[in-house]
Amino acid sequence: MKALKERVYEANMELYRRNLVIYTWGNVSEIDRDKGIVAIKPSGVPYEKLTPDMIVLMALESGKVVDSDLNPSSDAPTHLALYRAFKDIGGVTHTHSPYAVAWAQAGRAIPCFGTTHADYFHGDIPLTRFLTPQETEEAYEANTGKVIIEAFEGINPVHTPAVLTRGHGPFTWGKDGAQSVYHAVVLEEVAKMGLWSLQLNPALTALPAHVSDKHFLRKHGPNAYYGQKNI
Amino acid sequence: MKALKERVYEANMELYRRNLVIYTWGNVSEIDRDKGIVAIKPSGVPYEKLTPDMIVLMALESGKVVDSDLNPSSDAPTHLALYRAFKDIGGVTHTHSPYAVAWAQAGRAIPCFGTTHADYFHGDIPLTRFLTPQETEEAYEANTGKVIIEAFEGINPVHTPAVLTRGHGPFTWGKDGAQSVYHAVVLEEVAKMGLWSLQLNPALTALPAHVSDKHFLRKHGPNAYYGQKNI
Amino acid sequence: MKALKERVYEANMELYRRNLVIYTWGNVSEIDRDKGIVAIKPSGVPYEKLTPDMIVLMALESGKVVDSDLNPSSDAPTHLALYRAFKDIGGVTHTHSPYAVAWAQAGRAIPCFGTTHADYFHGDIPLTRFLTPQETEEAYEANTGKVIIEAFEGINPVHTPAVLTRGHGPFTWGKDGAQSVYHAVVLEEVAKMGLWSLQLNPALTALPAHVSDKHFLRKHGPNAYYGQKNI
Amino acid sequence: MKALKERVYEANMELYRRNLVIYTWGNVSEIDRDKGIVAIKPSGVPYEKLTPDMIVLMALESGKVVDSDLNPSSDAPTHLALYRAFKDIGGVTHTHSPYAVAWAQAGRAIPCFGTTHADYFHGDIPLTRFLTPQETEEAYEANTGKVIIEAFEGINPVHTPAVLTRGHGPFTWGKDGAQSVYHAVVLEEVAKMGLWSLQLNPALTALPAHVSDKHFLRKHGPNAYYGQKNI
Repeated sequence: MKALKERVYEANMELYRRNLVIYTWGNVSEIDRDKGIVAIKPSGVPYEKLTPDMIVLMALESGKVVDSDLNPSSDAPTHLALYRAFKDIGGVTHTHSPYAVAWAQAGRAIPCFGTTHADYFHGDIPLTRFLTPQETEEAYEANTGKVIIEAFEGINPVHTPAVLTRGHGPFTWGKDGAQSVYHAVVLEEVAKMGLWSLQLNPALTALPAHVSDKHFLRKHGPNAYYGQKNI
Repeated sequence: MKALKERVYEANMELYRRNLVIYTWGNVSEIDRDKGIVAIKPSGVPYEKLTPDMIVLMALESGKVVDSDLNPSSDAPTHLALYRAFKDIGGVTHTHSPYAVAWAQAGRAIPCFGTTHADYFHGDIPLTRFLTPQETEEAYEANTGKVIIEAFEGINPVHTPAVLTRGHGPFTWGKDGAQSVYHAVVLEEVAKMGLWSLQLNPALTALPAHVSDKHFLRKHGPNAYYGQKNI
Repeated sequence: MKALKERVYEANMELYRRNLVIYTWGNVSEIDRDKGIVAIKPSGVPYEKLTPDMIVLMALESGKVVDSDLNPSSDAPTHLALYRAFKDIGGVTHTHSPYAVAWAQAGRAIPCFGTTHADYFHGDIPLTRFLTPQETEEAYEANTGKVIIEAFEGINPVHTPAVLTRGHGPFTWGKDGAQSVYHAVVLEEVAKMGLWSLQLNPALTALPAHVSDKHFLRKHGPNAYYGQKNI
Repeated sequence: MKALKERVYEANMELYRRNLVIYTWGNVSEIDRDKGIVAIKPSGVPYEKLTPDMIVLMALESGKVVDSDLNPSSDAPTHLALYRAFKDIGGVTHTHSPYAVAWAQAGRAIPCFGTTHADYFHGDIPLTRFLTPQETEEAYEANTGKVIIEAFEGINPVHTPAVLTRGHGPFTWGKDGAQSVYHAVVLEEVAKMGLWSLQLNPALTALPAHVSDKHFLRKHGPNAYYGQKNI
């Protein structure tokens, strides 16, 4: 478990170095699926004071903390809901990065306006609905997971590793914590480019499918040819 | 008083490190309510040259400087007015941070568009009215305090620790100088996200109350569960 | 003349440190009015390679280079025209800082939307007209000075130390080179805040005169009370 | 070839230092026309791990890799097409710099709105058409070169060393790799200024030709007088 904590610590610090978070905002988790354990940032701890041993371990199914005096991130139930529903993901990131938040606040999914988006995310970045008053009252963070899962009906979360929770902000995921951070960085770039593109062309629609599919498949799947085979 | 000056110095330098001020702009103060003393940045001193012993002490009631050859910030009468009216605050910050200034210049209060706002500020960030020519002439800075206090009729300043002074810029406050700076940083983020959200959705209105209340109460009040009890 | 070159070198490097210029863009000059000598950045030299001895000296009246193998900035005739027309200025800065350029390209003077502007610039930042084809052909840079001077008919250049040359960018000035750089930094802040203010309120008009006058007079003239008398 | 690899390595790292790329995005190449060899960044290698010996050499005509186990940038066929069609260029840069991408995604060529643009680029920055499904399927990257060349019918690529590929992003070029990076930096500035100018004046049109021609010819051609003859 020490290596897991170290990796989750590093992924959280990378979020900070990439300027996607300030103060105590945001959190990264990673799962060990064999052991059914999720490691996550503790709640309310500034990045400047975070250490690997402060990373909190929780049981995937019960959500119970297994070895820590610290509380896990208040968003932990959202992370757990995603790990339970999306069996092929290994890491989750949440931020309040400002361009992605702007789309989430505006209540707009991000269309695939260009190849930067298509290289990483297949189709729109989905937007969740607001929680109902009852869902908010009963289990706000777990139900945030529920509405994300709803938004992915018919969408493969591995091919579209990001979502905007309405009025709140982005969650991203990946094969591990580090890749979920990587996707958070790319999402923020895509959200920024999308805003500026709309300012230049308010009637803009998504890329033709043959272009976006080409870019996605150039990097993903059996015929991918981007990058190196041997490194 | 040495510790107070040191804290106010540190809070002012934090404002500078967070890139909310340039040159001599902005100022932070903190009050010692037992002694009735307010410590504040001197007027017109660049942050690069500021030292703890240059921090100016003033009497809360009279506004008189008690131990310095330097003039206090020209905004000192605004700070004093806030300390007199808002009995539960311990620190005040003023900046010309550009996103918050844009809202102040545009003459718009900042609606609660998302949870980043709701985590720290209950309801809109209020906007003051312009001072009348007579108020401007008689006591510009003290009357700036007066119109802020007017804008908080019916609003708890501890739950909404920020205001926009029309055509000018933001004032924020908190339990001490450091927290007032923290709120100035968050306000600038919120002002930025709000502008971009409106660009994506010009008809955007505030979050549903059940969501914004949830986020505010998750961090504030008797049932707060964000953060750690033991650190 | 060595001290003059050193000061002009420092002012140019400050422009670079403040991120108002890249590569070889921009230039600062300063005048020694007793000697009738103007010192200016050489043309096309990157800031990383600039040294104090590369600063070029010119005679104010003839515009002739007096001691250098390097060419002065190609904008030198504009600087000289300003020194000849505005007798009370001691330094001039030209940049392509992007927010100020946006206003210059858009063909709009910057109205006084707030107190940040009013603290430094009295009234609008004026916009020049385009040069005619003949003026462009005959003496482009000298005539750029001419249209700036035209734009200041009835305006005191000491109270409004900045201009936007249409389709090009800003020139600022001050009592010396360093202060002209200071005004270039403030102008860029004001241009940025102004753009964002208009995005929030497209119908925005200038501050009421009693507010802008108050801020200007708080820092300038016989009854100024901002800053320190003794430092 | 070692010096060529070293130069191309340096040009790629400059792209990174200028904040035009993150992770593995972007690529710079340079050609040795005497030997018919093009050197380019390897595909999918992060800038933090790039070394000069990882730069890949390819034959200009065949496009075959001549000395490396690494794959060249997936955009290599676009670079090769440009070198074959534009005989007077020596270096090519591709980025996803966000302001230029916004114009490419919005489907708008960048008009010459000001002298910053005119100093480096004659006329609009052209925009390519989308590739057809068949062009995408057959040879996406080579055909990206084809549509760029189409967009330059009647335009001298040496006088306008940049293009926007629709829905994708910018390519720039120059006499060598370093100058193509320089043009990528300037293009991003111009794209940024252009967006902001349109926000201030949505009906804005290009500079009068007599102004843009003056600025271009001040720096280019037999009567250029910007810069120094002797350095």
